Order: sequence, then structure tokens, then C-alpha cells
Amino acid sequence: MSVERVIALSGGVGGAKLVLGLSHALPAERLLVVTNTGDDFDHFGLRICPDTDTVIYTLSDLADREHGWGRTDESWNFMDAVRELGGADWFNLGDRDLALHVLRTDRLKSGESLSGVTNHIAGVLGIRVSIVPMCDQPVATVVETADGPLEFQHYFVRERCAPQVTGFAFEGIEKARPNPALISALEDQPAVIVIAPSNPFVSVEPILAVPGMRTALRDCGAPIVAVSPIVGGQALKGPAAKMMAELGVPASAVEIARHYRGFIDGLIIDEKDAHHMREITDIGVPVEVAQTVMSDLNDRVELAGRTVDFAARLRGGIKR
Amino acid sequence: MSVERVIALSGGVGGAKLVLGLSHALPAERLLVVTNTGDDFDHFGLRICPDTDTVIYTLSDLADREHGWGRTDESWNFMDAVRELGGADWFNLGDRDLALHVLRTDRLKSGESLSGVTNHIAGVLGIRVSIVPMCDQPVATVVETADGPLEFQHYFVRERCAPQVTGFAFEGIEKARPNPALISALEDQPAVIVIAPSNPFVSVEPILAVPGMRTALRDCGAPIVAVSPIVGGQALKGPAAKMMAELGVPASAVEIARHYRGFIDGLIIDEKDAHHMREITDIGVPVEVAQTVMSDLNDRVELAGRTVDFAARLRGGIKR
Repeated sequence: MSVERVIALSGGVGGAKLVLGLSHALPAERLLVVTNTGDDFDHFGLRICPDTDTVIYTLSDLADREHGWGRTDESWNFMDAVRELGGADWFNLGDRDLALHVLRTDRLKSGESLSGVTNHIAGVLGIRVSIVPMCDQPVATVVETADGPLEFQHYFVRERCAPQVTGFAFEGIEKARPNPALISALEDQPAVIVIAPSNPFVSVEPILAVPGMRTALRDCGAPIVAVSPIVGGQALKGPAAKMMAELGVPASAVEIARHYRGFIDGLIIDEKDAHHMREITDIGVPVEVAQTVMSDLNDRVELAGRTVDFAARLRGGIKR
Repeated sequence: MSVERVIALSGGVGGAKLVLGLSHALPAERLLVVTNTGDDFDHFGLRICPDTDTVIYTLSDLADREHGWGRTDESWNFMDAVRELGGADWFNLGDRDLALHVLRTDRLKSGESLSGVTNHIAGVLGIRVSIVPMCDQPVATVVETADGPLEFQHYFVRERCAPQVTGFAFEGIEKARPNPALISALEDQPAVIVIAPSNPFVSVEPILAVPGMRTALRDCGAPIVAVSPIVGGQALKGPAAKMMAELGVPASAVEIARHYRGFIDGLIIDEKDAHHMREITDIGVPVEVAQTVMSDLNDRVELAGRTVDFAARLRGGIKR
């Protein structure tokens, strides 16, 4: 008996907002979140998984709402001591957040998979939603820039997204395999695949670039619905709009439709972009207008519901 | 031109007190401290070196004087989060202290030696005294007990020294080699070797058990002077007296003399033990009475001076 799962592909902050909404709109066993691991990296020998952690902290109500990353009630004494000892201080690790990285690194070193560790930690924190890293093999997003290639966190945190982007590479992706828990959920006739309003290049693309991922998502028969991360020509969070401009495409919901065309069955755009409806429909992408700017929990739950409903309406029309 | 170095062998808290005194009594370039690494261990995948760290924190004035271990102005948010995540919480790691373990582990992993890392960290913290781990190879002190063998920190911290001790083993000691910086200092005609008032079984013995260490120390020609860690039948800190009782020898300064007899050239005992002078002299160990209980910095500096003076007087009488 199928539970009609909703499968959400998510990056960090923006994606996690919709994921939180979905977790309130659905019974926990109906939601499976696939997290981007392309921006995972090693820092001080610790394995850090920013997007997965943001989803974990968001769903366990531990996320810092002000910063948009890390934990609430955080302290920074470790970082003070790192500076005192002459260590690198461009990546901030809070004292509490550090516990997750230290325990995860230790478990990974003892041979546990990233999925296993993620599942364990989510369970300990009382999260009943399934959080599934896109793959268990290490993949490293590289941002190609006018200043040369940069590891993602170097581009994103250390360089504050300043260098001009020319392209992306996902190191190790050829050896990656879609997470078996995801494949199993896809075989179980899910109700919808949701692409959260995350950065299409560095949050969603690494997930889709895992060999076999696109086919597995398309072939499961569920409608694939994306929520545009571009609203009124701006990214609500992060460098998506800046990247689009540097790559020579206008930062608009229309370009998001073009980017995902052929893969998605529908796109949700913000009310501010309602005037793009016709243009998006004309390029062959069914479109739904909703309030996609999520200021509070109500907005998150509301958008989650609209996304699932839109998918249900699309389902009838899917022919593959 | 020799700088007439004083070489001190030290464990943790008790030893570090005398080391601090020596550092005030002597120019920095005259003092070299050899630290016990037998109680180093891996916890959460981090390499932790309790005795070396106690010496580092003591000499950089960062030591927590109340606990006797760890750093001053410490916070415990990491440990709170470890507990929240279901991690082991028997070994307390402060938020600031953690920076040292994380940075050291990272440098060791990149191929640097323990000596190199220790030297780097001491330098960053402004310590001009040489701090030299007894060896660069990993050695693990195992406490053999009536309940079976226990890793040192499991015995010391987790079990709070409760199990009855039957013996000791130093795993990996056969592959250890005395620290080259120590060997080099020994070749440079040091003025004295001081055995700090540290636990003879688990702080000093691992150092002396490094193959070639005893011979190198004896052959350098400098007098070897120990300061008794037993005062009035008690250990001022730690399980030394309890261990002696369990091993079937009275916890007394006389037994410390017997323990080191044949290796040391003189023993400093506390004023409380002055009545043991004759007995210790009779077993062939020259003895000096001093105030060895170090309550404040003056006491530390005073005992340091007495130790160096005693050694100077012994030097004339050494025949090897």
C-alpha cells in the first residue's frame, strides 16, 4: 500500500523553508527530502554538510532564523580560540553546531554511510520526516570563475560570491549513485516530486547531475513541480540572480522555466511574476501563480499545500 | 656554547606546577619540558594530549586553576549539543579547548609530527620554553585492573580511578623513539634532569619506557633529580597513592625513593616527610627536604630554584 510520498529536492535556506511547510502540511511518513551534498566539504578535517544540516536544523526547530544558517542560541568560543591559535577563521563554526560535525565525522570515519549518519542524527533530534542526502559518495561542487575554479564554500563563504561565475563542475559526480532510499521511494509511486526554490545551478543541479537521477525521477510517473527561486528578477537568498546575470541570461522566472523545461511538469512562480505567465506557458511549461515569498510558517505551509495541489492537477495530464 | 639546559619530565597538573616555577626561575631558552604522551588518545576522532595540553595551557597562562585541567574562561555548549545528539559525554571538552584538539588533529592528519604541531601551537601562544612530547610515535598507557585492562582515560576519567590497579602496559612503546629534540638537548651537556612531582607509574614511567630513553638520560652526565609526588602518605593530585596501595607498597616518599633508586641521583621530599630522610639516605638516595606543596606561584618558583640548586650540589659527586 503506497503512502503517496512527496519527494522534495532541496538546497539550504530557501529550500528548507518550503520543506518545513511540507512537513506541516503532510504526515511525516509522506515526506522525503533529498538534500544537495555538492557543497559538503572538509574543514579542519571535519565533514560539513551545510544543506543537509540546514534541513535538519529547520525540521528540528534548531535553525537560527536570523542568520539563515547554523543553530539557534549559538556561541562562538571555539572560533575565538581558533583565531587565538592562528587557525583559519573564514568559515564560522558555532560551539553547538560543531557537535554535529564532530560526531558525523567520527561516524563516517568508522565506516557508516552519510545516509546512515544523517538518519541517525535526524532520529535523535526527533525528526520523523526522511532526510536523504542525494548520494553517499562525496561530490564537490566547483564554481568556475574569472579568477579560476573555487571550491563551493570558498566561493560562497570565503569570497562572498564576489568572483564572476563562468560555469560549474561537480567533482566525483561520475562515481555517485542516487541514494538507495530515494530510488526505493521512487519505485513506490510517489505523488509528486517538488524542486524547492533553491539555487538551480549549485543546489538543484548537483542532485540532478548524479548519474541515473534524472531518469529515475522522470520515470517514477509523478509530476515534477519546481518553485521558482527568482522573484521579481531577484533571488530571495543567495547568488542565483547574480550567477544568471554573469552567465548571460536575465534573472527572471522565465529563465527558470527555460532552465528546467523538458524536465519539469509545472512551475510555480510568484505573484510578482504573474505577468510572465503567458511567456512561460508559451515555452511549454504549465505555470501556477502563488505567493512564494515565505515570511512566516503560515506562508510556508500555504505554499506547500499549493504545490501539492498543483501537482495533483497536473497528474491527470502527464503522458510519458 | 652550552646554555646549561634544565630538562624537566612532566605529566599533567602536578608536574606542570613545577614546570611553571622553572619557567619563572630560568631564562626560557634554558628550559626544555618533556611531556608524557602515554595518556594521549582519540576521542570523537580528535587527538587529545592531556599532559602536553596542561603544560601548554599552564605556560601560556590559559590553564583553568580551579579544575586543574582544561582552559580558563571555558564554556560547555559543545558538550551540551553532544548530549543532545546522543554522543558520549564522559570526557568533557570545552568549547575553547576544542580548538586546540581540532587544529592539532587536522595538522597531524596532514602529516605534521606531534612535535611539530606542539611547537607550532606553543609558539602561537607566545611560549618560549621548549615543550617536547616524549616521542612522536603513538603510545597508549593501559591500566591493568581487577576489572580487566582499561585505556588510560577510561580508567582515569570515565571510571574515576575506581577499579583496582594490578599493573600497567604501554602499547606501541616498542616502536617509540625518544624525541630528537630531547636527544639533541641531552648531547648539549644539560645542567640537570628534573623528574617533576608527577605520577611515577602513568606519567613518568611512559617517558622512561621509551626505548633508549633511560640510557640517554643517564648518559648525558647531568644529575637526575626527582621531586616526590607523595607528601605525608598522600598524592596531592591524582591516583598515585591509591595505585601504590593497590600494588602492595606503602604510599610514602620512601617508596618513591625505592621506585627511582638506581636511576636518580637525588630526591626532594616534602618537609612533612623530613622524618624519612635517614631511611631514604640509607637506601642510597641523596635527599633534600623542601616545601614541595605548591600553593601559589612563589611556591612554584621557590621549589624550582631549590631543585636546580640541589642538582648543582649533586653534580660534583656524580661518578658514572
